[in-house]
Amino acid sequence: MLVKQGKEKKWFRAVWRQNSTVKMIDQRLLPKKFKIISLKNHKQTVKAIENMAVRGAGSIGATAAFGAMQAVLEAKPKNFKQFIERAFYRLRHTRPTAHDLFWAIERIDFAIQEKNPRKAKISAIKEAEKISSEYCERGKKIGKHGEKLLKNGTRMLTHCNAGWLALLDWGSALAPVYAAKRNGKIVFVFVDETRPRLQGAKLTAWELANEGIPHRIIADNAAGYYMSEGKIDLCIVGADRIAANGDTANKIGTYEKAVLAKENSIPFYVAAPTSTFDPNTKNGKKIVIEERPEREVLFIGKQRIAPKKSRAFNVAFDVTKAKYIKGIITEKGIIKPKKKAIKRLF
Amino acid sequence: MLVKQGKEKKWFRAVWRQNSTVKMIDQRLLPKKFKIISLKNHKQTVKAIENMAVRGAGSIGATAAFGAMQAVLEAKPKNFKQFIERAFYRLRHTRPTAHDLFWAIERIDFAIQEKNPRKAKISAIKEAEKISSEYCERGKKIGKHGEKLLKNGTRMLTHCNAGWLALLDWGSALAPVYAAKRNGKIVFVFVDETRPRLQGAKLTAWELANEGIPHRIIADNAAGYYMSEGKIDLCIVGADRIAANGDTANKIGTYEKAVLAKENSIPFYVAAPTSTFDPNTKNGKKIVIEERPEREVLFIGKQRIAPKKSRAFNVAFDVTKAKYIKGIITEKGIIKPKKKAIKRLF
Repeated sequence: MLVKQGKEKKWFRAVWRQNSTVKMIDQRLLPKKFKIISLKNHKQTVKAIENMAVRGAGSIGATAAFGAMQAVLEAKPKNFKQFIERAFYRLRHTRPTAHDLFWAIERIDFAIQEKNPRKAKISAIKEAEKISSEYCERGKKIGKHGEKLLKNGTRMLTHCNAGWLALLDWGSALAPVYAAKRNGKIVFVFVDETRPRLQGAKLTAWELANEGIPHRIIADNAAGYYMSEGKIDLCIVGADRIAANGDTANKIGTYEKAVLAKENSIPFYVAAPTSTFDPNTKNGKKIVIEERPEREVLFIGKQRIAPKKSRAFNVAFDVTKAKYIKGIITEKGIIKPKKKAIKRLF
Repeated sequence: MLVKQGKEKKWFRAVWRQNSTVKMIDQRLLPKKFKIISLKNHKQTVKAIENMAVRGAGSIGATAAFGAMQAVLEAKPKNFKQFIERAFYRLRHTRPTAHDLFWAIERIDFAIQEKNPRKAKISAIKEAEKISSEYCERGKKIGKHGEKLLKNGTRMLTHCNAGWLALLDWGSALAPVYAAKRNGKIVFVFVDETRPRLQGAKLTAWELANEGIPHRIIADNAAGYYMSEGKIDLCIVGADRIAANGDTANKIGTYEKAVLAKENSIPFYVAAPTSTFDPNTKNGKKIVIEERPEREVLFIGKQRIAPKKSRAFNVAFDVTKAKYIKGIITEKGIIKPKKKAIKRLF
């Protein structure tokens, strides 16, 4: 997407490749600072996923693909397979919940199978680039399909960040809003701030401000109030993993908003590319939920908000059962969160 | 309640009187700093309510009573009535939602009616002290009644701060936990951090740490997750105003937790002294909800978290309809949130 930089606008993806270097917008610094970081080898790329310089299912997927590619490029002929296997293992163990991570590594792995080092390297670059372009293409299509749900004047709620920062370009939950804007419709977005990491207040608000889309940030506690007051017409959120039955893991708090939407008869949609679907996971109960450091709750920035003796629980995702979801917006169209409809995608 | 201060423990109420000075714990500085402030006249007391050095329905009520008392003491015989009327007007316009504020001023007003200045001053002091002692007594009784809901090992969720800081002594939602502790039962408390002002992470956690009660702070987004995982046995929250039909205004986010509790078949209780009931307000729709500065959402401390161009909505309370509330714990016992049961209280 285009990013305002002073008086100019420049085109950026959230993550991209420059020869064997992975480049990305450091998402930990936004909205204060727009900074590009360069990751010169797969170990640096592993770290960038772990420390959340990059986040968002699709952007994690693309980064993992590029990281896997870097490992292939770095591998010496002598212990080629072993080196790659170890690197892929490290990449797979960065974050447990986002399905795209595993899916992207799998694709690179498949692309280099049975190939000699020279051919494997060429294939790895090609496949990583392909994955990356597919994400952009899929985001654009999600926007096209999802836009049908939005009228001029629609007031939408979103949670966390499922914009282009989370999916290289366009995004998932926000892609329909961007598509609507390009077609002359104005959508108003309620932005959940999304504690503890504040991806809503920091990243979604930054994206929307950059695009000139009207929005307001609200405390996560306030979404229910605005729903009950009839001020929210629909909800669209992203996803980190969608099970075979439509149960969806997404940023902590998504389940709360889905229950509140149901209680207030507001349609609740999930937007995600097919790479986020995990047909091998039967239902939401089987999804591994990442627990993150207590520090994210006890501190804001460097400032401790909690008493010294108090501790926290910090679970990063929750599961929203399919029954709360009206539809899933994919690049192949809007589908019901049902086993059969999901099977038909593949 | 007793507060640890170094190696000693000292007894404090959240707000108290010393001659014509109002003293209070500055709740904006906790948990970092335990500081007592002195308010020498009613104008300073008005400011302390406005700037939230004191908050919590009961503590606001007691502060308003003391502020009204100060006005009576400050009034010169010449324009006695006029001065007091103006002062009461200012006090009533500090914060709109908490019923105790209006109720306490009304009591002082009634106590001084038809009295000459000398007698009015004596009555004002007596009545303010009485209101203050009643809050402490009521909190203790709420604890006694509410304790019946808690077993050894009960895991309870609370929102915002409805402890002794909010009701001079004992508290409302936390009083049952303190009573249980004194009877040898250990209750585990999930503490919603309660954005935007973080009264949970800052004040409730501080109270619980001070009492040695096991607890963990969670992001407001995570309450639903722990409910759905079967890790929360019941919820108790405070109240700012309870309408004649049991609809309850309380800190923003209370409604969300109540809906989630219902969805997960978890009993949801409100704890409040009878002074928080407003029999003249028919139902929740008639309750005035305070909107507070956007800054509370856009900044944390002095640090702006949101993009410069982004704005916020910041509604401070929401209304939880009676249908979501299993019971209201008052100093007169636990009642159903029904018109008849509420009428019987008065």
